Amino acid sequence: MKLAVLKDPTVLGVALRARQASHRLATLSHECRREALLAAANSIIKRRAEILAANEQDIGAALRSVDEGRMSRAILRRLQTSPGGVAEMAARVRAVAGLPDPLGQTLATTELDDGLILHKVSCPLGVVGVVFESRPDVIPQVAALALKSGNVLILKGGTEAAHTNEVLVSIWRDALASFYEIPIEAITLLHSREEVAELLALDGQIDLIVPRGSREFVRYIAKHSRVPVLGHGEGICHVYVDAKADSAKAIDIIVDSKTQYPAACNAAETLLIHQAVADDFLPEIITELTKQDVEVRGCTRTVASIPQASIVRANDQDWATEYSDLIISIKVVSNLDEAIAHVNTYGSGHTEAIVTEDREAAARFMNEVDAASVFHNASTRFADGFRYGFGAELGISNGKLHARGPVGLDGLTTYKFKLFGSGHQVAQYANGERRFKHDASMG
Amino acid sequence: MKLAVLKDPTVLGVALRARQASHRLATLSHECRREALLAAANSIIKRRAEILAANEQDIGAALRSVDEGRMSRAILRRLQTSPGGVAEMAARVRAVAGLPDPLGQTLATTELDDGLILHKVSCPLGVVGVVFESRPDVIPQVAALALKSGNVLILKGGTEAAHTNEVLVSIWRDALASFYEIPIEAITLLHSREEVAELLALDGQIDLIVPRGSREFVRYIAKHSRVPVLGHGEGICHVYVDAKADSAKAIDIIVDSKTQYPAACNAAETLLIHQAVADDFLPEIITELTKQDVEVRGCTRTVASIPQASIVRANDQDWATEYSDLIISIKVVSNLDEAIAHVNTYGSGHTEAIVTEDREAAARFMNEVDAASVFHNASTRFADGFRYGFGAELGISNGKLHARGPVGLDGLTTYKFKLFGSGHQVAQYANGERRFKHDASMG
Repeated sequence: MKLAVLKDPTVLGVALRARQASHRLATLSHECRREALLAAANSIIKRRAEILAANEQDIGAALRSVDEGRMSRAILRRLQTSPGGVAEMAARVRAVAGLPDPLGQTLATTELDDGLILHKVSCPLGVVGVVFESRPDVIPQVAALALKSGNVLILKGGTEAAHTNEVLVSIWRDALASFYEIPIEAITLLHSREEVAELLALDGQIDLIVPRGSREFVRYIAKHSRVPVLGHGEGICHVYVDAKADSAKAIDIIVDSKTQYPAACNAAETLLIHQAVADDFLPEIITELTKQDVEVRGCTRTVASIPQASIVRANDQDWATEYSDLIISIKVVSNLDEAIAHVNTYGSGHTEAIVTEDREAAARFMNEVDAASVFHNASTRFADGFRYGFGAELGISNGKLHARGPVGLDGLTTYKFKLFGSGHQVAQYANGERRFKHDASMG
Repeated sequence: MKLAVLKDPTVLGVALRARQASHRLATLSHECRREALLAAANSIIKRRAEILAANEQDIGAALRSVDEGRMSRAILRRLQTSPGGVAEMAARVRAVAGLPDPLGQTLATTELDDGLILHKVSCPLGVVGVVFESRPDVIPQVAALALKSGNVLILKGGTEAAHTNEVLVSIWRDALASFYEIPIEAITLLHSREEVAELLALDGQIDLIVPRGSREFVRYIAKHSRVPVLGHGEGICHVYVDAKADSAKAIDIIVDSKTQYPAACNAAETLLIHQAVADDFLPEIITELTKQDVEVRGCTRTVASIPQASIVRANDQDWATEYSDLIISIKVVSNLDEAIAHVNTYGSGHTEAIVTEDREAAARFMNEVDAASVFHNASTRFADGFRYGFGAELGISNGKLHARGPVGLDGLTTYKFKLFGSGHQVAQYANGERRFKHDASMG
């Protein structure tokens, strides 16, 4: 590397060194990556006193901010860690270490001709930027995902967690430093908002930006980034109760989808009910939801069905709102087509569920609804990387390109084509001397 | 659909109708898509006189433009079709019809728990915009790829091919109209540049833009689009001749990579030679390249090696240039590391080749070079969707997200997660009543 690049203190300098390091990271064996992850997990435990001391410093400053009304108690809670929290950080790193190798997987093999073999093989993206709000436990989690998948990580956390973040990154770097194959630039912590702005402009140098934090935060990053962003805006999820729904299952699924964790992006916001079952089902479900302190807003038909319940009338705005709270809107639909059309109009492409005993209706809903996750007789709350068995979650994406839905290690990999020949030239195929076999039967 | 949307003549109206149509296209059986493609291929043949007459009109206008110096003969040639060209259009549609179904493929299955089964299944992107320059044969080709993969297509071709394009789209629409399941909005032709500008702004309505044309054209579209773009900028490809290269193979591969079609993006622009073989190999390859009318520009060492050849001295600009012509730059490198570093610095991530009999050197080059295609002992010209056996090529992407390298039908698909349960709720797992199995052994 040229000396100018080695010493360049700007974000571009960081990015260029990161790019160089990424080429070396791409060559690390799975064994080396796994051992380095276990070493990092051990260091986190060994140096927990440092982490907790730094966290106390951050909490001290944050408490003053709360007292002065400049910070909410919710942010304070997310900021705070504990001996248990530190143990959990290490456990998550170990869990990632134990996952199968995401790199070097042969995704397809084709024999183009005798002695000319094409492999499609998984490989790292390269340099990934993660920008997050106050939770310091994001650092070991994404650092583990990045190292497992051979990617270089550039991080920027919230200023209110500055001391905790600094210690966590230094522990991580020190742990990696004992592995001579791993360059120290495998992880870098940025410190200012201006640096984030520079990072987001480095299209071509940074391969992916992953924002972690509130919806507003993610939306802000997506809007201001020239680098591709993996992250989602809204989660407007529906549960549709079909004409042939089992009403006990429907109640279980709706209550879980709405109340198990209402602030989650995969919580349900709107309930659609087939008119054939509306008269029977509406009173049942509204009674149940009211018992769970859920505010119901209904379409004309819903409101009319239980006059004594004095349900708020839902307006057009309600169908397009992610309440993230104990509120649900209910609409009676004429048929499956109207349910699908409503979901495709107002849904955010996140997670959509149908409750029915009719397999054909379920198949139509799941094929025609345009969403990352489509569920038959299950709560929308299952849409999550850990529940899907990915072992770790990088984020959830509403986009359709690259990775979609809950994203695990696969979101940090791409593929390359490796072609092995013995002097093969295209001219021989162009002039008809040789013909391609294109035999994909090898795998 | 609301009447306002049905009649809205703006590009947004087109896009909204396209989105609606995409939900129906996603449900077409493979049989239906295949039959519709064969019907379209037959219509192209049956109505070839119409196509040729429209093309003559376009050619007439273009000839006047050429005479007046407003159009190049190269554009005129690309514009012109012939009875043979029309037959080729139909043949390509039939070839796409015969490819395996890209939709509904189960990519992974996990049993999350008893009776709770997660499938990852391939599905269409939705609405794809293709913006292309003069070649009218792009229409049946991309229309076939779009229909095969269940996507709605919005097209805009060059104005100089307006009559030919109009006839081709009307033939396609008429052929589809006989299949009652297929909405006519499956394909729409836009007519003006202003409409393209509107289309490129419809992030969220259009899922992917594919530009087809010159490098400058693709770069222009990428720069002005808020919708994700599949397409590549440059193809700065290298051939590296290692210390243990077989010199006969090296000469074959270099000549093919440079001269078989110098204007192609996968043609080689720079040759790197290990210093251990430079003295022997340089005179050989320079003699051969000169025989093929290739202009050589060399590093200091290259120039010094054959003083009698009076080779032009390459400057820093040369290493970063895609000549797209019979020009090649040559650099002598100290070792494999320097070769890899040079490729990763100046390469465009397109296609990179190593010539060597040393398997370890080949493995290092192919792992450490950051490019979509990495070749061992084969010409860079093999990087192509047809040669890779995809049956059709949507384009070539230098990007790492979504599809990379030569892109076939897979570039027009995404996936969704389908979860099948029987009333499963997350609360039972959160409170420890049930535990996930995450059994992926089902496939």
